[in-house]
Amino acid sequence: MTLQEAREKLAEVQHKGAAYNHAVSLIYYDGVTGAPEGVADNRAQTLAVFSEEMYRLSTGKETAELLEYLDANRAELSRHEARQIDLMLKDLRMMEKIPLDEYVAFQRLMVQADDVWHKAKESNDWALFEPVLEKVFDYHKKIAAWCAPDKPPYDYWLDRYEEGLTTERCEAFFAALRERIVPLLKRVLARPQLDDSVLHGSFPADRQEAFARRLMDVIGLDRARVGLATTEHPFTTSMGSHLDERITTHYHEDDFSLSMYSVIHEGGHALYDTGSARELAYTVLDGGVSMGIHESQSRFYENIIGRSRAFCEYILPVAAEYFPELKGRTAEELYRAVNRAQPGLIRIEADELTYALHVMVRFELEKRIFADELAVRDLPAEWNRLYKEYLGVDVPDDKHGVLQDSHWAGGNIGYFPSYALGSAYGAQYLRKMKETVDVDACVRAGDLAPINDWLRERIWQHGCLYRPGELFERAVGEPFDPTVFASYLEQKYTELYQLD
Amino acid sequence: MTLQEAREKLAEVQHKGAAYNHAVSLIYYDGVTGAPEGVADNRAQTLAVFSEEMYRLSTGKETAELLEYLDANRAELSRHEARQIDLMLKDLRMMEKIPLDEYVAFQRLMVQADDVWHKAKESNDWALFEPVLEKVFDYHKKIAAWCAPDKPPYDYWLDRYEEGLTTERCEAFFAALRERIVPLLKRVLARPQLDDSVLHGSFPADRQEAFARRLMDVIGLDRARVGLATTEHPFTTSMGSHLDERITTHYHEDDFSLSMYSVIHEGGHALYDTGSARELAYTVLDGGVSMGIHESQSRFYENIIGRSRAFCEYILPVAAEYFPELKGRTAEELYRAVNRAQPGLIRIEADELTYALHVMVRFELEKRIFADELAVRDLPAEWNRLYKEYLGVDVPDDKHGVLQDSHWAGGNIGYFPSYALGSAYGAQYLRKMKETVDVDACVRAGDLAPINDWLRERIWQHGCLYRPGELFERAVGEPFDPTVFASYLEQKYTELYQLD
Repeated sequence: MTLQEAREKLAEVQHKGAAYNHAVSLIYYDGVTGAPEGVADNRAQTLAVFSEEMYRLSTGKETAELLEYLDANRAELSRHEARQIDLMLKDLRMMEKIPLDEYVAFQRLMVQADDVWHKAKESNDWALFEPVLEKVFDYHKKIAAWCAPDKPPYDYWLDRYEEGLTTERCEAFFAALRERIVPLLKRVLARPQLDDSVLHGSFPADRQEAFARRLMDVIGLDRARVGLATTEHPFTTSMGSHLDERITTHYHEDDFSLSMYSVIHEGGHALYDTGSARELAYTVLDGGVSMGIHESQSRFYENIIGRSRAFCEYILPVAAEYFPELKGRTAEELYRAVNRAQPGLIRIEADELTYALHVMVRFELEKRIFADELAVRDLPAEWNRLYKEYLGVDVPDDKHGVLQDSHWAGGNIGYFPSYALGSAYGAQYLRKMKETVDVDACVRAGDLAPINDWLRERIWQHGCLYRPGELFERAVGEPFDPTVFASYLEQKYTELYQLD
Repeated sequence: MTLQEAREKLAEVQHKGAAYNHAVSLIYYDGVTGAPEGVADNRAQTLAVFSEEMYRLSTGKETAELLEYLDANRAELSRHEARQIDLMLKDLRMMEKIPLDEYVAFQRLMVQADDVWHKAKESNDWALFEPVLEKVFDYHKKIAAWCAPDKPPYDYWLDRYEEGLTTERCEAFFAALRERIVPLLKRVLARPQLDDSVLHGSFPADRQEAFARRLMDVIGLDRARVGLATTEHPFTTSMGSHLDERITTHYHEDDFSLSMYSVIHEGGHALYDTGSARELAYTVLDGGVSMGIHESQSRFYENIIGRSRAFCEYILPVAAEYFPELKGRTAEELYRAVNRAQPGLIRIEADELTYALHVMVRFELEKRIFADELAVRDLPAEWNRLYKEYLGVDVPDDKHGVLQDSHWAGGNIGYFPSYALGSAYGAQYLRKMKETVDVDACVRAGDLAPINDWLRERIWQHGCLYRPGELFERAVGEPFDPTVFASYLEQKYTELYQLD
């Protein structure tokens, strides 16, 4: 094998991987959009075949030899190729520790778990979900033990979503937030509550869909390459490359803001993915580098931009084109309504201030299950207890409690802390961005291009070329500091609730 | 390799093939349902990778050795396995004659052709489509020359859709039909035209969609396994196995019957596919055996059942539940309206009597292009000339002429005769079925189970276990005879138009 042949082969392996990713993403997407409801068995069959093919592609002898040969000749490679080798070798070293039959069985289990969870949530039936969730956690423990026997198993999974993240770092981060958020929330709740009546009314789904497309234009998504669909649980996915992206939303006809912020949130993910440099397509460097950085984009658009006063000023008259009952309402009413802080039951409906508390509940539970300090069967009771302790709310049933999120059923255990991390990263982007961009003026004018350009240049275009920590520090020129986010919240809520 | 290992390997190769089929079908389906409009390049990339993988899977050394080993030991195999070997070896012998790079280039071309055709049809722009269609025909000629150098190239392609079909057999078949249809149509057109005003009005798409689901239930489709979507051009596709099937339709708000017959037609395809015996799933024996037999199911349901007086009697009050303006109309009015014979421009809107003439135009054009007697650039003029000659209509533009069908852009050249053959097969099913089933009574009662059972037992469950000719003769107990169809038409239209 000449070096040139090896480089061509490297590209070919990545093209195959992208094609499998396309198929797998589309099969999942189809499963929650167009597919008839009784065909999960057929999906599972195909996904099992593809997971086996992907396993062989990542860990097979031919790929291993190729990567080792190229690794030994890395001085001859481009910076992109060298990083591709690093990522692929890391993946190979990990995957080869998981026996093939176990890997395929795990993939099959995850398809089944997702199907069972949908039914369990719909019928509020924890008992249906419990045995399969137990298997899901057991598999996660086994995989962690195979792949990283020297690490606590939860650390292995945290690192999968945000390279370098550990239980200890999470605890420090959450402690820093809690120290500032809990007293702030207490002061907020002592004040008269903000009025959010502007959000409530009758907003037909078809109008909301037209408005959703308008929002996609406003935040700068290219709708020729980013599709919109309706699902029970909103999400974003790439079809093998950043050249075909899909976001989904859910329309609540009594409150237009839920889908609005869903679209802006998923739109932030899609901006990040589709912002990869063109030449990264069909390589392992394409798309977002970690879930923490991903959520830092989605939550930046959703909250820091979308829940700003400037955005409310811009979007209210636009929204009124679709929803005539908004005519006569003021931007200030909208701003106060969408920032109403109120401890609640549902994470994805939480305001910016209480959101991190929802994440902390999940972090606590995952941590204790991995440490064998909590059994899966005790999850609902413990969930409810922690919601009472952290948020002061009583959980009426599991549908509004432990069954609410798709993540565990989707095999995304260890993912939740990324949301809180991402929120905190965003406050630092904002501080840095304001040095060169008049963020408020841009948003008020509905011109997000300077903001998108800032993020594209520093974050999006690089795909997976840098590790997340490095990417973050290059973007903001300083280490991660959660107190910036705490200060952002304090400033915002002090003014909103007139705490001074 | 022991025999047992070889048998397991045989199953595995077919499972992989089914998974690729699932991915490829879903990527096409997504392309015309949910995908944003600017991502054809991304689809093309993935489909190129998969077509290469499928080529390797079908023709690779490992598969070839496996099939040859099993072929040499066929006495030890089950009837199913022996047939699998036959079909796979046939495929291998053919595929290996096409160079891999040409095969992949052909697949890429077909994705591009489909994309260009959609744009060309929308903008009525033949010049846009012409160069790519020329390439499509050239590739079909090349492939035929590689795979069947001893056959006329058109015969190679006809045989791909209906094993055993030749230009000569088509000509004899069409001559037999023309001899009876042309004078019949002449007599029909000399009579006062039937009134079809019952079909016209205002039928909202959402009501039509609800009615479409009801129709799926009526004809006996399992909606847990058969999805319904909306596309410009209705079609049916399986997702890797008969366990996940999709049909599509298109709603014309001024005429509810177009989608109704589309759903029944595509539903007939779906009944056939999903009627495969369970154990055929994920093997090459799964689903329909040929396009002729496939169209014999779809057109049987659409016309012989769906355009019968008994079906009109059953469906009118059902349709009136969805479309209140139908109240007060009679079944006889509906029956006459949906059987109005009128030479027109559009094949898929043609009545039962003139339909075959539309097919004959296409057959004539394909035949002459393959014989190098007609150039692709001359297709529009020749199309228009033949429509005038066969149907007596003037084609106003290419959108309503040569650009109307997706087949050539989809690489389905040689497919059209299957529609006419399928129509003719159906008349023989009906004659045979009536020996044991009171077809009219069942349809009038809206109970299609005895009809479905008859077809399931004789046709559907067998998948690809028999060659199409053999399957047909086993089902009806006699050779194919196009005069049965001609007589069926004569009887029906003589009564409808009171020709006696």
